[in-house]
Amino acid sequence: MDHLDALRATVGAPHVLTGADALSYEVDWRERYHGRALAVVRPGSTDEVAAVVRYCAQARIPVIPQGGNTGLCGGATPDDAGSAVILSLQRLNRVRGIDTDNDTMDVEAGCILQAVQQAAFDAGRLFPLSLAAEGSCTIGGNLATNAGGTQVLRYGNMRELTLGLEVVTAQGDIWHGLRGLRKDNTGYNLRDLYIGSEGTLGVITAATLKLHPLPVARCTALLALDSIESAIVMLGRARAGLGASLTGFELMAGDCLQDVVRCFPQQRLPFEGVSATLPWYALLELSDSESELHARERFEVVIGDAIEAGCVLDAVIAESMAQSHALWHLRESIPLAEKESGKSIKHDVSIPVSRMAEFVLGANAALQAAFPGIRNVIFGHLGDGNLHYNVARGADWAEGQLLAHQDDVYALVHQRVHAVGGSISAEHGVGQLKRDALPQFKDPIEMALMHRVKSALDPLGIMNPGKVLA
Amino acid sequence: MDHLDALRATVGAPHVLTGADALSYEVDWRERYHGRALAVVRPGSTDEVAAVVRYCAQARIPVIPQGGNTGLCGGATPDDAGSAVILSLQRLNRVRGIDTDNDTMDVEAGCILQAVQQAAFDAGRLFPLSLAAEGSCTIGGNLATNAGGTQVLRYGNMRELTLGLEVVTAQGDIWHGLRGLRKDNTGYNLRDLYIGSEGTLGVITAATLKLHPLPVARCTALLALDSIESAIVMLGRARAGLGASLTGFELMAGDCLQDVVRCFPQQRLPFEGVSATLPWYALLELSDSESELHARERFEVVIGDAIEAGCVLDAVIAESMAQSHALWHLRESIPLAEKESGKSIKHDVSIPVSRMAEFVLGANAALQAAFPGIRNVIFGHLGDGNLHYNVARGADWAEGQLLAHQDDVYALVHQRVHAVGGSISAEHGVGQLKRDALPQFKDPIEMALMHRVKSALDPLGIMNPGKVLA
Repeated sequence: MDHLDALRATVGAPHVLTGADALSYEVDWRERYHGRALAVVRPGSTDEVAAVVRYCAQARIPVIPQGGNTGLCGGATPDDAGSAVILSLQRLNRVRGIDTDNDTMDVEAGCILQAVQQAAFDAGRLFPLSLAAEGSCTIGGNLATNAGGTQVLRYGNMRELTLGLEVVTAQGDIWHGLRGLRKDNTGYNLRDLYIGSEGTLGVITAATLKLHPLPVARCTALLALDSIESAIVMLGRARAGLGASLTGFELMAGDCLQDVVRCFPQQRLPFEGVSATLPWYALLELSDSESELHARERFEVVIGDAIEAGCVLDAVIAESMAQSHALWHLRESIPLAEKESGKSIKHDVSIPVSRMAEFVLGANAALQAAFPGIRNVIFGHLGDGNLHYNVARGADWAEGQLLAHQDDVYALVHQRVHAVGGSISAEHGVGQLKRDALPQFKDPIEMALMHRVKSALDPLGIMNPGKVLA
Repeated sequence: MDHLDALRATVGAPHVLTGADALSYEVDWRERYHGRALAVVRPGSTDEVAAVVRYCAQARIPVIPQGGNTGLCGGATPDDAGSAVILSLQRLNRVRGIDTDNDTMDVEAGCILQAVQQAAFDAGRLFPLSLAAEGSCTIGGNLATNAGGTQVLRYGNMRELTLGLEVVTAQGDIWHGLRGLRKDNTGYNLRDLYIGSEGTLGVITAATLKLHPLPVARCTALLALDSIESAIVMLGRARAGLGASLTGFELMAGDCLQDVVRCFPQQRLPFEGVSATLPWYALLELSDSESELHARERFEVVIGDAIEAGCVLDAVIAESMAQSHALWHLRESIPLAEKESGKSIKHDVSIPVSRMAEFVLGANAALQAAFPGIRNVIFGHLGDGNLHYNVARGADWAEGQLLAHQDDVYALVHQRVHAVGGSISAEHGVGQLKRDALPQFKDPIEMALMHRVKSALDPLGIMNPGKVLA
C-alpha cells in the first residue's frame, strides 16, 4: 500500500487531496510562498489527526499543519520537494462547549476566529482576539502563532487567552490538556510551549479559551500630538486614569492619515487648521462596564487634563458609535492607502515603549541616508510597543526600485530594532520569512535551548521542517 | 582541590557555608522537610551562579536553588544524602532598573517580594503580586513556583506578570533573556517553561516584570449568601458590572467566620440576626481608577441589583479604609483561627468555577462518611477557582487522630478534585510533597512530555533532583 492509499484508509478518500485539488493549500493567501505537497489530508477528528501523524512519523513524511492559510510568514506552506503532507485542520471546526459560569469555551482548531467570537457573543461573553483576517483565519492558526491584534493592551496575546490545549504530539499521541483552570501549578507549562511554536512541535487540535464580560459601552477618541514623546506621556496618563478600561492605544504618523484622506476622499480628519497637519495622532479606545455616558465622561476628564498639561494639542471624542467607527476606519484604511502607492516593505516589530522615539527617529534618518527619498509609513499598537514600521518608495522612484533593496532595508531596520532591545517579530511569527534572521538577533544560548526543545519533542524532525528553526 | 575548595574559589570562602552555618538552609521554614547538603553556596552575581552550576555539572553535584525558603512543598530542600549544593540566590538582590515609560522593572532573583512591591510603589507603579510570605519570600521563588496570591483574578499569576528572564542553564550557560516587550513572537516560549519549573530545569537569576498603574481608590464589600451557587451568580454579576476593576472575590464558609469571631473576640461580623449565621460569605475588592466615591457607588449599584434579584441576602460596603481593612482582617484570620483547633490537613486545589458546588458538597459528604465528625474549613479565591479546602479534626477527636488519616484524606480529596476537572496544586507547586501524586492525576502523555523536556534541558539530571518529577 503506498502512502496515499494509507492516508485514504485513515481519513477517507474524499479527504485526501492531490493535484489541482491541493493547489490552493500549496500557496499562501498572498501568494508569496509556493510549495508542493504529496497530498493535503483533512482529518475529521482528533483521533484521525493522531493516526495521520503516527503514519507520517513511521514513514518519515514531513507534516505541515495548516489552518486558514492566512499567515504572513510562510509558516503553513511546504517546501517544493513534494514529499510533505499538508495537514489541514479545517474539518475540526466544532465549538465543543461553552461554560458561562467558568467563563471558558472549548473549541476545535479549525474554527474560524469570527465564529469563535460569535459563539462567545451569543453566550453573552467576549472573546477578545480581533485581527484583520478574523473572517478566514482559524483559532488553531492563532494559537500556532500566538496571535496578537488590537486588544492585547487589555486582554493579552493568544497565550493569555488560553487555559488548556489538546495536542497531537510529533509521535502521534494525544495530550488531553483541555483544562478550564486559572491556577494550575502541576508541572511544566507545555501549553505555552506549543502555543506560538508554529506547528514545529506538534499539532494543536483544540483549546480551552478564556472568556470575558461583554463591555457595556465603547468609546473612541482621536488625539493630535506633536511628538512620539507626547504620545508616550499620554499613554501613561491614559493607563493611570482609565485603568483596564483602556482597550486600545494606536499611534499613527500624520503622513499616514494624510494619505488616507487623499486616497479616500469620502473620509476626513475630524480636525481643522494646524491640528489637521500634526506629525502624530493617537486613537484611544475605552471599554466601559457602566454606560456610554460614563465612558465619554472618563475620556473628557483624562484627555481634558492632558490638553491642559500641554501633552495633547487637540482631541475629538466620538459622540456616537457611528463616529467611533469613522475614527477606527481612518486607522484601518492606512494599509489600504499604503497599497495605492505600490508595494511597501513591512516590518512587524516591537520596541520597549520608552525607546520608541529613539528608534523611530534613528531608523528614519538612517533609511533616508541610505535610500534618499524613501518614505516611512508608521503606525501601530503603541500600548503594546508594537509598531508597523513600513517603508514605501519615494515619490519619484520607479515601481520595483524599492523592492530591489528589500533585504538591505530589512537588515537596517532589524539591526536598529535589536539595538534598542526590540523584537523583529512582534505578532506574525517566524515561519520561513524570518527563520534565517533569527540566529542573528537571538541570544545564542536561547537558540541552543530552542533546538534542544525541538529535538526533545520532535526527534524525527517531521513537524513543519524548515519553519522557525533551520 | 576538593569540591568545597573549588566552590570557595568560585564565590569566595565566606559564601560557602557548611555545618551549623548551613542548618537553616537544610530545613524549610515550617520544618516539614529536612535534608543535608554538601554546602550552601551564595554567589554574588549571575556570572558566579553560572560558574557554580558549571562546576557542579562537571562534577555531577546536584544543585538545589533556594530563595526565601518559604515554599510549602519542600521544593528547596535537598534530600538527606549530603551530596547536593544548595544554591542560595539571596545575594542577588538588586533592583537593576525601573522603566516607568515602558512599565517594567528588572530585578534579581534574590529580591524580597515586599522590596519589589515597594520599589514599584516608589516609582508610582503597582507590582500586584501579593501573598502571605511577601516579607520573606524572594521573587526568584515566586518565579520558580509561578506564584499566585490574592489578585490573580485581575492581574494573573507570576507568568502573566513577567516579560523576560535571565537564566543560568543546567550547563552553566547564561541565557540573557531580559526583555521588556509585550509582544515578541520569535520562537518558543522558554520563559514560561522556566517559570514554574521549580528549579528543575535551570536557575532563574533575574526577571523583567510588568508594572501596572496604582489604583486611585480601593473599596471592599462583604456579602452574605445562602449557597455556593449564589456566590457563582454573584461572581458573574460582579465581573460584568465591575469589569477589570474587580480585583478580588474571596469565598468563605460561614463556619470559618464563626470560628474567627469566637477565637478573636475583638473581631466581629458586620451582620446581625440571620445574616450573621449564613453558610457562605464573599469578600469583594474593587480597585478604581477614579475615586473612592465612584468605587462605593459602583459597588452600591452592582450589589444593590444582586440583592434585589435575591442573589445576595445582605451586604456591607466598607465606608473607610479602616473598615476595608477590618473586613480583610476577617478573611486573613481564618488560617489563624484554624490553627487554634490544632493541625489541619490542607489542600491547595483549583476547580472550574461551574463545578465548585458539586465538588464541595460531594467532597464534604464523602469525608463525613469516611471520617464521621470531621470538620471542613473552606475558603479561597473563588474568582480563580482556587479553593483552600482544608479538613480539621472533629470536636471530640483526640489531637493527632486526624493526621493519622492524612494520606487517606489527601487521596479522597484529590480524587474528587480530579473527577471535576480540577488541579491538585493550584498555586503552591509540586516540590516533594505532590511529586508522587502527579502521575496519578496527570495525563500520561503530558507526564511523558515533561520528562522529555527535563531530559533535554537538564540531561545530567543535576537540577533539583527529586522535585516535580521522580
